[in-house]
Amino acid sequence: MVVKVYGPDFASAKRVLVCLIEKEVEFETLPIDIIKGQNKDPEFLKLQPFGVVPVIQDGDYTLFESRAIMRYYAEKYKSQGTDLLGKTIEERGVVEQWLEVEAQSYHPAIDNLVIEILFGRKRGIPPDAKVIEESEKKLAKVLDIYEERLSKSKYLAGDFFSLADLSHLPFTKYLADMGKMYLIEERKHVKAWWDDISNRPSWKKVFSSRWPLLE
Amino acid sequence: MVVKVYGPDFASAKRVLVCLIEKEVEFETLPIDIIKGQNKDPEFLKLQPFGVVPVIQDGDYTLFESRAIMRYYAEKYKSQGTDLLGKTIEERGVVEQWLEVEAQSYHPAIDNLVIEILFGRKRGIPPDAKVIEESEKKLAKVLDIYEERLSKSKYLAGDFFSLADLSHLPFTKYLADMGKMYLIEERKHVKAWWDDISNRPSWKKVFSSRWPLLE
Repeated sequence: MVVKVYGPDFASAKRVLVCLIEKEVEFETLPIDIIKGQNKDPEFLKLQPFGVVPVIQDGDYTLFESRAIMRYYAEKYKSQGTDLLGKTIEERGVVEQWLEVEAQSYHPAIDNLVIEILFGRKRGIPPDAKVIEESEKKLAKVLDIYEERLSKSKYLAGDFFSLADLSHLPFTKYLADMGKMYLIEERKHVKAWWDDISNRPSWKKVFSSRWPLLE
Repeated sequence: MVVKVYGPDFASAKRVLVCLIEKEVEFETLPIDIIKGQNKDPEFLKLQPFGVVPVIQDGDYTLFESRAIMRYYAEKYKSQGTDLLGKTIEERGVVEQWLEVEAQSYHPAIDNLVIEILFGRKRGIPPDAKVIEESEKKLAKVLDIYEERLSKSKYLAGDFFSLADLSHLPFTKYLADMGKMYLIEERKHVKAWWDDISNRPSWKKVFSSRWPLLE
């Protein structure tokens, strides 16, 4: 059964694509054109009532929320492809901890920058310097903690690549598009971590597909 | 081994307490006085580098982020107490989906209201009517989707109480403190769901402990 992934052009969906590649799960992508309002089509809302992407269909099983989808495939194919959850319940606990940090602290700070700078640029709205400054400060604080953490272990959850690292890929890429990669590069261990995870074939494949970054 | 839970006075920590009671895991609570800055003590920062609660210690295992801690205990004691993850990998997927909706959509909307109304009241800062209106609108939109979902299944992830429902308890309680319980009560299925989950002995015990709601 080939997994259908709706909305491959969007950053959150790329988390799912990288995860499926790491787990060696076959998939096909179905673009969702938000400009045309396809995300508000009654048929799409039956799959995803919030009208956002990604959502997957796997036979008659439907699931949305990128991090939930990743957890599902990482668990379903535990022993196939890259193990992304750790070997023990304790290791999985630490994976979940850093995955929550990504979702609750790292992602919101970058997302605010993306909305202000990239969305603003697309719509011709000048960015709000105060929002940018505050978001960058929040992100820097999170990255300081990552720097300390990554000085002790190669990846966030330990010495193994996991969902916690993977989940950072698509939105960190936006830092380059916003000229803010120095936030990563000026931190030695964060830089080494980013160089490592962003060079994984799974991410290179998803990234080099050249789907438009913002629709 | 008794689990140590730091910061029981805070809403996020209450998620963990309810989970431990449901899983019949013994715990002790260690208050963290944020007014006195105990959350920034070097010793505390060794446990939780972001300086927030909750954090748990279980022997020499330390974990932070309330939803990660809940997942850990729900999995570690899968067959003890209430099963909070579903019976199959597919059911767990749906639990994770709604747990992500809580974390990404429901929680941020209520949290904005709490900061604006309750924190503002404590600090003598008048609330920003626009922020309140926008947050309430966002929350109402999420609750409309819950209403539809809960017309089809008793709980968010299906016909079983799970981490997805549990995670809503502490912050939904704030709606009462803010005079906004009508958002729940004007939706028939959401109201029935809230009446059900808020009457669980685990929540009543955590709630009736009368820890201060905001420090």
